[in-house]
Amino acid sequence: MKLYTSTRAPNPRRVDIFLAEKGIEVPRVEIDIMKQEHKAPDFIARNPMMRVPVLELDDGTHIAESIAICRYFEELQPAPPLFGVDMLDRALVEMWQRRMELDLMVPVAMAFRHTHPAMAELETPQVAEWGEVNKPRIFTMLDWLDGELADRPFIAGQRYTVADITALVAIDFMRPVRLGVPESCTNVLRWYADVSGRPSAGA
Amino acid sequence: MKLYTSTRAPNPRRVDIFLAEKGIEVPRVEIDIMKQEHKAPDFIARNPMMRVPVLELDDGTHIAESIAICRYFEELQPAPPLFGVDMLDRALVEMWQRRMELDLMVPVAMAFRHTHPAMAELETPQVAEWGEVNKPRIFTMLDWLDGELADRPFIAGQRYTVADITALVAIDFMRPVRLGVPESCTNVLRWYADVSGRPSAGA
Repeated sequence: MKLYTSTRAPNPRRVDIFLAEKGIEVPRVEIDIMKQEHKAPDFIARNPMMRVPVLELDDGTHIAESIAICRYFEELQPAPPLFGVDMLDRALVEMWQRRMELDLMVPVAMAFRHTHPAMAELETPQVAEWGEVNKPRIFTMLDWLDGELADRPFIAGQRYTVADITALVAIDFMRPVRLGVPESCTNVLRWYADVSGRPSAGA
Repeated sequence: MKLYTSTRAPNPRRVDIFLAEKGIEVPRVEIDIMKQEHKAPDFIARNPMMRVPVLELDDGTHIAESIAICRYFEELQPAPPLFGVDMLDRALVEMWQRRMELDLMVPVAMAFRHTHPAMAELETPQVAEWGEVNKPRIFTMLDWLDGELADRPFIAGQRYTVADITALVAIDFMRPVRLGVPESCTNVLRWYADVSGRPSAGA
């Protein structure tokens, strides 16, 4: 098994944190996105979507998409459970993971990809207006999330799950766009300090 | 159990097809998006993301997000399996479902939401340039998918899965943007005729 990945990029980091929570180590092959190594023929053969990370199994099968890779490891090693503990919990974790991805991480990514000068060669064309439209959506989401976190420790309930991983990575990804969690979002900030303090956050 | 949904909208249709494939019937409450009923206080209480569908359980719990709802029904009634049959297959179905959603359905949705006059009041602001940027991406994806479908019957392999449902709904959603599958994509068209011919496609 081998993980083709890029240290520090947001989606790879989701898998890194997930693996750290599980205590799983996987041999890594570093792909340099700024050098466009993800667009080289040998990488495209592994993932035609040209995105990291990709998990290569010993039989040559490739699993792309961070959340698909995480689900594979969840089944390979169920403890600790990060996708929920029973039928209803698993549905709710999926709901929260998707909300954190589609309504927080995606707007942050759109703001970054479409307004940051470093992305000019990778995101073609950059649509600056689209990047700007997404910025206030991040804060609308954080304000709402703040109310949700008033009466529970983690995004999807009483346990740390993959939804916390996505939300943590999304919020850290606000830094390159020079945005941050407003001081008024005290519950988000409490949750953020908590999940950032876990050893896995350094992964 | 009650499904708050909007007949004909793309995400609700994913759940409708999924339920039809399972042979499950759920009482429905119709939400009129054009009348902005999804932004009314009683609906927001069910799903603060203001999106259909939402599944209301008998104990008052709400499951939002189409794929989370589908996963709940997959566990409630495993046959026929639509999310994969073993650990590796489930990871690959997740990979393909995400590719069909993020790289096909989302670009179609962006083209629709940001260029269609009917969306002017719902998508604010419309960023026409962003809508246009997404159109060629749909065709890049379809061309690539055509090669993938050359040697297998369904999106994720030998079985019909939730990835086929997402792809079918995405392709039908091209119509309001006046786009269609190019004639050169013979494998996609063969697959499309096949999945469109299943009774569930009428759901």
